[in-house]
Amino acid sequence: MEQKDIWLESLITATPQEGRELAIKMSRKSIAAIQTDPEVRKSLRSDYATDTKQLIASANVIAIDFQTIAMANNYWRD
Amino acid sequence: MEQKDIWLESLITATPQEGRELAIKMSRKSIAAIQTDPEVRKSLRSDYATDTKQLIASANVIAIDFQTIAMANNYWRD
Amino acid sequence: MEQKDIWLESLITATPQEGRELAIKMSRKSIAAIQTDPEVRKSLRSDYATDTKQLIASANVIAIDFQTIAMANNYWRD
Amino acid sequence: MEQKDIWLESLITATPQEGRELAIKMSRKSIAAIQTDPEVRKSLRSDYATDTKQLIASANVIAIDFQTIAMANNYWRD
Amino acid sequence: MEQKDIWLESLITATPQEGRELAIKMSRKSIAAIQTDPEVRKSLRSDYATDTKQLIASANVIAIDFQTIAMANNYWRD
Amino acid sequence: MEQKDIWLESLITATPQEGRELAIKMSRKSIAAIQTDPEVRKSLRSDYATDTKQLIASANVIAIDFQTIAMANNYWRD
Repeated sequence: MEQKDIWLESLITATPQEGRELAIKMSRKSIAAIQTDPEVRKSLRSDYATDTKQLIASANVIAIDFQTIAMANNYWRD
Repeated sequence: MEQKDIWLESLITATPQEGRELAIKMSRKSIAAIQTDPEVRKSLRSDYATDTKQLIASANVIAIDFQTIAMANNYWRD
Repeated sequence: MEQKDIWLESLITATPQEGRELAIKMSRKSIAAIQTDPEVRKSLRSDYATDTKQLIASANVIAIDFQTIAMANNYWRD
Repeated sequence: MEQKDIWLESLITATPQEGRELAIKMSRKSIAAIQTDPEVRKSLRSDYATDTKQLIASANVIAIDFQTIAMANNYWRD
Repeated sequence: MEQKDIWLESLITATPQEGRELAIKMSRKSIAAIQTDPEVRKSLRSDYATDTKQLIASANVIAIDFQTIAMANNYWRD
Repeated sequence: MEQKDIWLESLITATPQEGRELAIKMSRKSIAAIQTDPEVRKSLRSDYATDTKQLIASANVIAIDFQTIAMANNYWRD
């Protein structure tokens, strides 16, 4: 039986803002896929949350993931 | 009842320049989603506003978000 | 009455080279949107104009903005 | 006879989440193509798994590779 | 009379390799647009030509500019 | 007579994995176009092959070049 956490069933969202939230989630999940220990991730959080260089780099990742989601949703035009 | 701040209802803007302004807003909102404390964000502002490396990195994020918005608006061609 | 500086009325340019010039302008305007003080921007100029790392990072931003402009102009094919 | 490891037969996946997993695999394979010694790669793992700057940079790579995979799958829309 | 150096008349090239060469030229021209003094650029050359971090960052710019050129040429498919 | 090394005749490859190999080659050729001395490039190799930051940055370049190749091949769908 499938036990794996299914967190990305679709790229389709109701609104652009929900698309943005999905992009943030996707970016976080990428980091979790590399650093698999949630305790370590928690301890690392202070490293980047007050480092503007890393906040900007995170926004770059979110922008790329959001572009993909926006394409999938035909930019919520229709 | 929905209390959440709705800040991204649409990617459609009247002009390219408004699209650019939306891209800047989106980039800022990404950072706010990670560093949720407005006081901390305010205190961090001086870290990047006079650091050209970070200003350039911010412009990179804006360029990606603007590309998505430009696609959504069919490049304001019609 | 509208007093705001309108600097981006259209993504359409006559030639690819003018598109390139618009991309450079867009990148500069992104930085100006974050660091709004022109005197500070002027004083920062020497920080990046002789730092190849930052020159390359600037070229990265220009490349992304130019791609958007090229798409808008259908690559100046027709 | 073909002895080479065939790890990328198709960009098509059943679900977005499998697409995400393929993107992570592709990013890893890129690094393996440059640093070909698996023992060295293993020893390097601690360098980036606890360095948030590098985790964010890795997420940037995954976001780009995922965008390509999402395009290939027509965003799993049909 | 027009005295300005016209270096980008078209994104169309005969072959992918010529497209690659144009991408390299475009990246160089971006840097020249910011650091306008050719003597300074020449003196800076040694800063990045032996710094692998900067060589990789340059390759990133070339990859983006080449993608735009490849799109313009319909990937040299027809 | 044409003596120049022709290394990029087409973006078309038989399989996605061959496309990936072409992306790696393209990234390497970009670096070779800037640092033209093969002996210097060889001596620089140890600088990045054990530096995870640079390995990740290289994977970013490969991801962009691969996206272009995947587009050219219509994602190997047909």
